[in-house]
Amino acid sequence: MVKLVVKNLVEKDKFEEYTRLFKELAEETRKEIGCIKYELYQDDEDSRILTMIEEWENKEVLEIHKNTEHFTRIVPILGQLRTKLIDRNLYNKIV
Amino acid sequence: MVKLVVKNLVEKDKFEEYTRLFKELAEETRKEIGCIKYELYQDDEDSRILTMIEEWENKEVLEIHKNTEHFTRIVPILGQLRTKLIDRNLYNKIV
Repeated sequence: MVKLVVKNLVEKDKFEEYTRLFKELAEETRKEIGCIKYELYQDDEDSRILTMIEEWENKEVLEIHKNTEHFTRIVPILGQLRTKLIDRNLYNKIV
Repeated sequence: MVKLVVKNLVEKDKFEEYTRLFKELAEETRKEIGCIKYELYQDDEDSRILTMIEEWENKEVLEIHKNTEHFTRIVPILGQLRTKLIDRNLYNKIV
């Protein structure tokens, strides 16, 4: 199992469109084989920080995800809506 | 439900002791009321990055956790073993 944590800075005026598009992306993604979790979180102190926390059975299904219609259509738009990519980490579980 | 993501830089020579102590901490923590997940992850590209990803029913049970015997005994030692706290985010789920 792998976890992908993608931390974004999204300004207030982009928040609604960003979350609307993410909902659409999540709806399709959660149907994919190997997708365990695909969620969006907001930082408790800074509401501009929106972090995707994804859980996948393995790296291979995550790669397949990156070639799906919904990913290639929506993720670039999300990229334009955010002010900055703060951090992106792909993780393997240890404990 | 809240998620706490704590990203640490831990040098190679401290890795074994850090993970051993985290296992002990996790074993006790997972028994706590309201603890949904309490896990340690390693970055796929930089093995020195060890990130705690915790899931709690709410902020209140997380506060209680911080006063437990195992937290107050072990977490300060983990703090000394790490080279740096890279990031710490408490998150609320949106999607």
